[in-house]
Amino acid sequence: MEQTTTVTEFVYYADMFGTAVFAISGALAAGRLRMDPFGVTVLAAVTAIGGGTIRDTILGAQPVFWITDTTYIWVVLLTALMVMLLVRCPRRLSGKWFQLADAFGLALFTVIGAQKALAYGASPLIAVMMGVMTGVVGGMIRDVLCREIPLVLRKEIYATASIVGGILYTISLEYQVAQVPAMIIAMVGALAIRVSAIYWRLSLPAFELNGDHHD
Amino acid sequence: MEQTTTVTEFVYYADMFGTAVFAISGALAAGRLRMDPFGVTVLAAVTAIGGGTIRDTILGAQPVFWITDTTYIWVVLLTALMVMLLVRCPRRLSGKWFQLADAFGLALFTVIGAQKALAYGASPLIAVMMGVMTGVVGGMIRDVLCREIPLVLRKEIYATASIVGGILYTISLEYQVAQVPAMIIAMVGALAIRVSAIYWRLSLPAFELNGDHHD
Amino acid sequence: MEQTTTVTEFVYYADMFGTAVFAISGALAAGRLRMDPFGVTVLAAVTAIGGGTIRDTILGAQPVFWITDTTYIWVVLLTALMVMLLVRCPRRLSGKWFQLADAFGLALFTVIGAQKALAYGASPLIAVMMGVMTGVVGGMIRDVLCREIPLVLRKEIYATASIVGGILYTISLEYQVAQVPAMIIAMVGALAIRVSAIYWRLSLPAFELNGDHHD
Repeated sequence: MEQTTTVTEFVYYADMFGTAVFAISGALAAGRLRMDPFGVTVLAAVTAIGGGTIRDTILGAQPVFWITDTTYIWVVLLTALMVMLLVRCPRRLSGKWFQLADAFGLALFTVIGAQKALAYGASPLIAVMMGVMTGVVGGMIRDVLCREIPLVLRKEIYATASIVGGILYTISLEYQVAQVPAMIIAMVGALAIRVSAIYWRLSLPAFELNGDHHD
Repeated sequence: MEQTTTVTEFVYYADMFGTAVFAISGALAAGRLRMDPFGVTVLAAVTAIGGGTIRDTILGAQPVFWITDTTYIWVVLLTALMVMLLVRCPRRLSGKWFQLADAFGLALFTVIGAQKALAYGASPLIAVMMGVMTGVVGGMIRDVLCREIPLVLRKEIYATASIVGGILYTISLEYQVAQVPAMIIAMVGALAIRVSAIYWRLSLPAFELNGDHHD
Repeated sequence: MEQTTTVTEFVYYADMFGTAVFAISGALAAGRLRMDPFGVTVLAAVTAIGGGTIRDTILGAQPVFWITDTTYIWVVLLTALMVMLLVRCPRRLSGKWFQLADAFGLALFTVIGAQKALAYGASPLIAVMMGVMTGVVGGMIRDVLCREIPLVLRKEIYATASIVGGILYTISLEYQVAQVPAMIIAMVGALAIRVSAIYWRLSLPAFELNGDHHD
């Protein structure tokens, strides 16, 4: 019983860590476009909590998670402030270590999203979708607000890692694996794929249409 | 009674056909931008089920329709896969036959959306809005993700067909027309307008502002 | 008691006035891009009721406000029609008087949004967020549909006025100030900041990242 509490607590702190990492990536995107402090905060928030917000409204899990527990908002606000005060040279933050932290956030958000969907009675297919949505939709809204085609739709093996993590998690649970090992299996799988993609610069082949010019 | 079952079944299969047609239009848009398989699938899904999803969250009809019946998701996934495997020359798919299928989807989605709104106690005005939303918002999100100003806002007589269909449907029901003839009246009306617009290349006059340069 | 009714009525009419002003700003943005009547109406609607719609879906206050009271929709439809029929030279409408009306709408929407969040049991922090969301998110969606980076994220002191209004409102209520004076304090505060910003052309300093080129 005490062990369960420890795991729950660890997941909670890890969730806040992932929230901060995603918020940093939003704040940096805002900085590149010379947004003002409000813009930086909005981009940080959208990237960190946007995916989970859409997941909750689709599931009918309202009020959404950050209304019930405002710690998420404080983490976003504090992260946005710290980025504005401390970061001048973002290269350090877009380096390998940050990408690794971001991969960890992606893997964890996927598992948390899938878990919540299952708790609301969704099927495994929907659970995987909700996991991926939690992991990648925040970044997609960030990119749209920056007037860009979401990078995740174009080439990087990013969503793939999330999909594999979600599938591993739901299949493990189907095969009666307990909650904690299922989470570990899923996160290790997602991280392995994402880290390999970063390390070897892998990307999926694009679907190209010939003989058709976009007008 | 048996007739009602047959009609319900026909509408259901027609709905899946419309979902596939809208998914194709999303997948083709992704292909034009050389997205990867994840991007193709997301664009297909957003175009096919985006409008109905927003309709359901606005009405409070959660969990949204494709969580209750995952067949929609399977149709989208299968369609996206087939487009990626089979389509190389999209011109055939953007021809008259495809536009006709798309017009059918638009007309049906409008009626289904209006029907759902009425079932949730909405007024006829809101039912028309929800019908139009179901028909056109998916394509709008697709265009935004492709970094384009939604075509439906600019010139084609596309939304107009949906609006007329929605109005015909709700007025028919107000005048005590039964469910099935009301659906047929609405769909014939919407299709007639959309097909005429395609055939004669009609478009609404634009609202232009002079003497004002956007800054 | 009669006084309360008068205040409630005044807020209601002021809300409709704000809705019309926001709808005008959406319709004008559509006109600049030469959208058709449907596009003008959609942009008017999104700007006027988009923020409150997202607020309500996040809080779980569905069906959203304009389904319960369709007057909002009629105001949007009528405003969009009037703009298309009457406006040829938008400069008059983007002048100081219109900006003042828009500032009034922003201040009122902020208070109404915060009020609704508190009514749904949200904390003061969330109430401020929901107030700001009600005030600025409609304009953000309008800008995204026009393929622009939302102006509110970039430089103008616009969101700041809304944030200050929201904070003044919730703090006043915390200190047992009655509903009506709290609303007045909040709106005067928000208006003072916004009008000063318009008058002296103030803007917040941007957060700029050096040594990083966006690719």
